[in-house]
Parts: sequence; structure tokens; C-alpha cells
Amino acid sequence: MTREQLTKKFNDFQSRMSAHRFAMFAISWDASTEAPKKSAPYRARMIGQLSGEIFAYQMLPENIAMLEEIISLPECDPLMRRSAEKYLQEINKNRNIPLAEFVTARQNTAMTTRIWEEARAKNDFAMVAPHLAREIETNRRFLEYRASSGHPYNVLLDDHEEGMTIESYDAFFNALKADLLPFVRQVHQGAVQIDDSLLYKFYAKESQKRFVEYLIQVIRFDMDAGVLKVSAHPFTSGVSCNDVRFTVRYMENYLPASVFAGVHELGHAMHSQQGDPSFEGTNLQRCSAGMGESQSRFYENFIGRSLPFWQTHFAKLAEIFPEQMEGVTPEKFWRIINRSKPSVNRVEADELTYPMHIMIRYELEKLLFGGEIKVEDLPELWNSKHEEYLGLRPENDAAGIMQDIHWYQNLWGYFPTYALGTAYGAQFYYTMLETIDLPRVISEDKMEIINEWLRKNIHAQGGLFSPSELFMRVTGEEFNPQYLVRYLKEKYSLIYM
Amino acid sequence: MTREQLTKKFNDFQSRMSAHRFAMFAISWDASTEAPKKSAPYRARMIGQLSGEIFAYQMLPENIAMLEEIISLPECDPLMRRSAEKYLQEINKNRNIPLAEFVTARQNTAMTTRIWEEARAKNDFAMVAPHLAREIETNRRFLEYRASSGHPYNVLLDDHEEGMTIESYDAFFNALKADLLPFVRQVHQGAVQIDDSLLYKFYAKESQKRFVEYLIQVIRFDMDAGVLKVSAHPFTSGVSCNDVRFTVRYMENYLPASVFAGVHELGHAMHSQQGDPSFEGTNLQRCSAGMGESQSRFYENFIGRSLPFWQTHFAKLAEIFPEQMEGVTPEKFWRIINRSKPSVNRVEADELTYPMHIMIRYELEKLLFGGEIKVEDLPELWNSKHEEYLGLRPENDAAGIMQDIHWYQNLWGYFPTYALGTAYGAQFYYTMLETIDLPRVISEDKMEIINEWLRKNIHAQGGLFSPSELFMRVTGEEFNPQYLVRYLKEKYSLIYM
Repeated sequence: MTREQLTKKFNDFQSRMSAHRFAMFAISWDASTEAPKKSAPYRARMIGQLSGEIFAYQMLPENIAMLEEIISLPECDPLMRRSAEKYLQEINKNRNIPLAEFVTARQNTAMTTRIWEEARAKNDFAMVAPHLAREIETNRRFLEYRASSGHPYNVLLDDHEEGMTIESYDAFFNALKADLLPFVRQVHQGAVQIDDSLLYKFYAKESQKRFVEYLIQVIRFDMDAGVLKVSAHPFTSGVSCNDVRFTVRYMENYLPASVFAGVHELGHAMHSQQGDPSFEGTNLQRCSAGMGESQSRFYENFIGRSLPFWQTHFAKLAEIFPEQMEGVTPEKFWRIINRSKPSVNRVEADELTYPMHIMIRYELEKLLFGGEIKVEDLPELWNSKHEEYLGLRPENDAAGIMQDIHWYQNLWGYFPTYALGTAYGAQFYYTMLETIDLPRVISEDKMEIINEWLRKNIHAQGGLFSPSELFMRVTGEEFNPQYLVRYLKEKYSLIYM
Repeated sequence: MTREQLTKKFNDFQSRMSAHRFAMFAISWDASTEAPKKSAPYRARMIGQLSGEIFAYQMLPENIAMLEEIISLPECDPLMRRSAEKYLQEINKNRNIPLAEFVTARQNTAMTTRIWEEARAKNDFAMVAPHLAREIETNRRFLEYRASSGHPYNVLLDDHEEGMTIESYDAFFNALKADLLPFVRQVHQGAVQIDDSLLYKFYAKESQKRFVEYLIQVIRFDMDAGVLKVSAHPFTSGVSCNDVRFTVRYMENYLPASVFAGVHELGHAMHSQQGDPSFEGTNLQRCSAGMGESQSRFYENFIGRSLPFWQTHFAKLAEIFPEQMEGVTPEKFWRIINRSKPSVNRVEADELTYPMHIMIRYELEKLLFGGEIKVEDLPELWNSKHEEYLGLRPENDAAGIMQDIHWYQNLWGYFPTYALGTAYGAQFYYTMLETIDLPRVISEDKMEIINEWLRKNIHAQGGLFSPSELFMRVTGEEFNPQYLVRYLKEKYSLIYM
């Protein structure tokens, strides 16, 4: 093949892959936000068909040969080579999985997610348990096809964060246990008590929506290129810089649910919206799950939970909720939203207890894929681990084992990236502080300065580099969880000591 | 190929066609109801790619040979044969169109529709005119590839209603002109005047929505298998019996916009929801555009604009809008909603003037595809034809030439099916009256009896028969526009004479 023919063949391949991804983006967004209940089985069948088509297409020997030829070219366009490498990585993961099993797995997952929604609403884990068991069983079989040596969970960890293993996550979580947990206990057992009943007053959904719309402006997310909607579990889905969707949920008796999930998802949304437009229609739009979470957690915590943020934006909140906020100062509000207390809900957890929620999920996944526990053990283990690490048990399975969508969407090895991303975010925060006076910039409502730093250093880099390479480029250092420990100790000492 | 291999090959073909249709269903629904403004160009590119893939796939010689083999089989399963015939019909339409031109056309249309939305909102026809010109130009070129003899518009008419030609539509519209128009003039010039100012009071959007939700229950549409949403132009889109979406629009100073478009779209929605589930994932779900419109117009007019309907359901309307409906009786309300007066808006037209709106569009399309006029002639011709047939001119292009989405969606030859479908509906109405006491059934709120008749006779027949065959099976007669003339004269004599 001439260089020109090869490039054309690659572009055709890439167009087809992107068009498939676009179709799945539209189908999934619809399924998660408004598709009718009874539509699930037909959609699952169609998703199976579409996934099977693209699977078979990727695996065509001529396509694999084409990608391999590209990466072996002596003077290849570096973007094309990186892109080909990433496609091959994906192909190699699935290469030995029989097509029919792959299709069935995709169909099953589409159904499992919808059944989870119903089971959670009915607080009936038994309804979804066999489906969850099938997801795990399928994954274990697929991991055998992938014929890796060592612990099967390592493969899943690497799927979502290249280079990560049980060993590296254990080291990370052990550091948090050793260096943070004693401090957390000190805070929880200390003399200072913060009354957070303010957060549990009645906040009308429509008014909360107005505040989320205000936050969109504060963060500078462009709604001409975005959609805000409601879903059972907040998420963000972006297919191009000009098409980024995110959801929140409104709890009328718990204000932070929309506010902080809102800023969190806006972090993801900015990450997508500020991507390099020339990566549209390629597989170079994203780096990794951990890098993605570093951005959502950065906006949520380092901006949205900071004192200058509320000194600047509390007035708007008080304007929308004058009765609820009567007599409350920005400083007081900031202390209240940052109060730390054990809870059983991950997305509502404060910054100090959040990593423990992730640790619990990580430990359960490790046990599951190590074959040490079964699905039927999960509800009780979930609850007892919460009791052990956080001191309280979920009141039912809807608030317990069915709390998060991830496992029911066949996402395994993904949760740990939330804690890792948070720690990445802390290190980015200290790096940013070297050149940007962050508190002042937030106080002066100059979000564009922060956005531009993140855009240039992270968002626009897309998937050009592996997470560890990108991390090194941004911070000039290796990843180090002590930045998170330092940040949390500094912040919570101010609040509690 | 053995019979078994052939069947498998056909099923694979059908699955792929259906999965593509499902993806386009999700993408289009999203684009028409909520996708962000800036997302259009990337989506157009992806739609081009997806359309090109399926176009190339259909045209594979092995697929065409497979379909031809099926229809030549001596003892073929009749469903499989009918399905293969319909696929071949579609393939033969497009067979000589070069792939690249087809892809570009699809991309362009996706953009034209979005630009129309903006141009209409800004009342700026010049903004969309070149795009519309390109749609027409592309169609004319494609019609040359299709190498039909005779008037090119005939090909488009047949595309949407098999067997229909300029000759048959002329005969149909001439019958209406000769037998209905004098009566319409008599009504408009008569002594009876109906004050319809009631309809233009303020009706809050949220309350209108409550009434539309009530109508959904009245019609017995199952919302566990459906979605109701808002769009610039009301429409229905159903991909399976368990996934049927429809939209309305709320005009706070014109109540009928949501009520009658609501019942109209519910007619389409019932048609899809009551389809034969075994046709899901096949191309046998639909008969024709005219048959589709016969159902929406049946629910809208023969049910929704009938006296017994309002005798039964006016109470709910008065409950939702007590102030607006003070002193109004069901009978009076029925007369008001059925008042006939010239207007410039098709979807808001009463039953008497509605066919004239279609006639205008039909005449313009005939001139356009006969090469007798150009896009730049359209706004003025649109307006002058309204003046000629209806006695008044639209006040601007947004209300005139940009009123309907169809042309900007590349739908040509489609409008006439609205009038035809209305006349089909009238003939179905008289057929139904032979066995069902329609006024009593409506009064007693037994919609399921009507639904069942339509399901059995029409909805569940899907695309098994050509429109004229199905028509004959339902009514036992040829199509005859005099049923519509009779119905309208009977009804409007009651109201006006």
C-alpha cells in the first residue's frame, strides 16, 4: 500500500469508528435520560447488533494489518501513529472474544442497567442480582480470553487507568489510610461540631435549577454547545467540543445534591468542551478515567468547595433562597458545606470521607474478581464495610449495594479512578498555585484564567499521552498522594481546629 | 445457497438495516428536541458517514442478489418475500446514485433542517434559501439518476404513496375544488359568524401540558412505551411498539395548537404503538405516508373535533381553565373549535380550509420539480397563492414559506398525503360507522373499541399491503373523495346552517 492509500484506509476506519461512537452516544444519552421503560428490550437488541457490527469490523485482518503497518512506519505522522496505537490497544483487549459472546454481553448489559433502575426504585436487590452475577461471570470469562497472568482485576484496573495495578492502588490507599485516616478520626471525634441542618431544609426543584443555571455561567460552560438534563445518576457525556451533555438530580430536602454534583459534572463538561477540536472524530479526545475524574473533582472541590467561591457566589444562592439562607454568612455556609461526617452515600460525601467510599468499592471488586466472594455476599459485605470504615450502615439496599450505577453498567475497576483523580487534582492544584493566585482569581470571578490553564495543560492534550506521561508534563513530578493529604489537612484544620 | 443459508443471510441483512434505522431514530429525535445549536455540523458529518455505510451495504451485489433470489423462490414465506420486495424497491430507487453524492446529500439535509430552525426564528428566509435551493437541485439530479420518464414530480409522489401520480392527485384535488369549494365559500360568506376569541385567551403552558397528559389517557396511549416532548414542529417518531415518541408545541395565546396537534400526533402514536410486534426489526412496520396521515387525521378530526368528544371531555378542560371557560358549554366550545375561517397556518387550519393549504403546497412542488419556478420565486408565490385560495397573506416569511419543516427536511411529494390521508380517514369513518356506534362509544369514553377496530384493520397490517390494497381490504371499495365531501358538508351544515 502506498502512504496515501494507507492514510485513506486509516481515515475510513476512523470515520466508521467515530460514527459508531456517535450513534452510541445518542442512544445512551436517550436511554439514561428519557427513553420509555418498555423500550429497553428492543434497544438492547439493537445495541447488540450495532456493537457486533463494529466489533467484527475492527477485527477484520485487513484493518489490524493496516493499523500495525502504520505504527511500524519509520516516518509516520505522530497523531496518526498515536491514534493507531490506541485502536490496537483496544483491539488486542478483545481479540480473542468470540463475536457472538461479545454481542450477547452488550445486549445483557443494556438490560442490566435498566433493571437496576427499577430494582433501585423498588429497593429490591434480588430483582437485579442475577443480572449483576451474569455481568461478573461474563467479565471473568472475557478476562480468561484475554489470557493475562496474575490477578484478573489488574487487567480491569489497567483498562481504565493505563499502568495502574492492585500493587499501585494498594500503595495509594495505604498511604491515605496511614496519613489521612488518623486525621479524619481526630476531626470526627473533636470538640468542634458543625450543625448542617441548613442543608436539609426544603429547596424547590425549580429554584435549584435556577442556581445550577447560574453555576453554568460561573464556570463559563457554553450552553449553545451543551445540554443540561436530569437523570437517576448524574453523568456527563461529550461526543465533540460542540456537543457535551450533563445531568444532575434535584433532591428537595438536600441542597448539595444538585450544587456539588452540578459543579462536578461541569468539570467533566469543561474538559470535553475545551478539548482540541482537531481531535473530533478521532480516538484522541480522551486520556483516561483518572485524568477525567481529576478535572471533575478539581472543579467540584478545589473551586466549588473553596471559601473564595462562596464569598463570591453565596449572594446569588441567598437571592434564590432568601428564607433558607436568612442570617447565614458566606463563611458560615462554606463551613457547613464542608462539615465532615460519616455517611453512606458516595456522591454526597465530604472531601475527607470520600476516599473511604472508594476504598470500600475497590476492596469489594478485588474480592469479586479474585473469586473470593460472590454476588450474594455483596449486600452484607457492602453494609459491614461501611460500618467498619464509616461507622454506619445503609438503611436498605437501594442506599447500599444499589447506590451506584457503575457495576450495573459493567464498569469494573473504574471506581478507584475517582480517588486517584481526586489526588491528581490536588497535585494539579499545587502546581497551578505556582503561577496563579487561585483564591484571588476565584474571588474576582475570573474563571476563564483557571479554564485556560486547564485547557492548555490538560484538556487540549486529549489522548496524546498516557496518564502518567501527561501527569509528568503538567506537574513536572511523579504522582504523589501526599499532596492530597496536605491539602485536606490544611483545609480541615482551618474548619475544625 | 440453501434455503437455510438464504434465510440466515436475509435475517442478517434485516438486522443490520434495523439497527441503522434505530440509530438514526435516536439521533434524529435528539436533534429535533434538544441537541445544542452548535452540535449540528459534527452531527451532519456523522449522519453522512452512517448513511453512506448503510447505502454501500444495501448496494452490495451479494445483497441485491440475495433479495432477488428470495422473491423468485417458488414457495417463499410470504412475509419474507414482502419484506425483500420492499427492500428492493428502496434499493432500486437509489441504485444509480453515486455513494459520495448520497453521503453529501444526507450531510447537507441535516444542516438545512437546523438552519431552517434558526432562519425561521429570525424570520430570515435569505439565510436558508441557498440551502433549500441545494436540496431541490440535489433532488432533481437524483431524479435524473433514477431515469424515470414523464414528470419528475411523479417519482416523488410515488415515493411517499405508492401508485399516486400528478394525474391522480389532480383528480383528487379537482374533486375537492368542484364539490367542496363552493360550500366552503358559502360557509365563509354566510350569515352565521362564530366568535372564536375564547381560543386566544391566555393559557399557561404548564396547564396545557396537564390537558395533553389527560388526552393521552383518553386516547389510551401507553406512556410506559412512549415519550412526550416539545419541538418547533410537532411530530411523531416510533421505532417499535414499545418506543413511540411524539411532540407538541404550546402557544400560550392559542389553545388549539397543543390540543389538536396533540390528538393528531397521538393518532400517529397509536398507529405505531398498536403495530404488530412481530414486525419489529423488519421493514414491514409501515404502509405509506397517506395511510399514516389517515390515522393521525382520524383521531384529530373524526374523534377530537367531534361533538361527543367535547361533551365527554370538556369538563376536564374547564377544570384546568376555570376562568377561561366560564359560561362556556361543551356544545358552544365544539362550535368554536370548529369555526371555519381563512388562515395562513396549515396545522392550525380547520377541517374545511385544510385541503387548500395542501393544494397550495402541492401546486408549488409541481412547479418546482417541473422546473417552472425557482427557490427565489417561492416566498412571493407562497403568499400570493394564499391570497388567491384563502383571501389573506402571511405577515412574514416565518409564517409563510418557512412555516413547515418538510421541505427543509428534504421531504417533497409528502404534503399531498396529508389531504389524501384526511380523505382516507373519512372513508374509514363511514366504514367504521357500519359496525360501531361511534358517537355513543366516544360519549361513553370507550376509546378501546375504536382503537381495536383500527388496530385490527389498519395498524397491525403494517406494510403487508400496498396502500391501495390495504384500503380495499378495510373499506371494500376504491378510494373515493366524496366521503370527505359528504362528511364535511354534514358536519358544517350542522354548525353553520
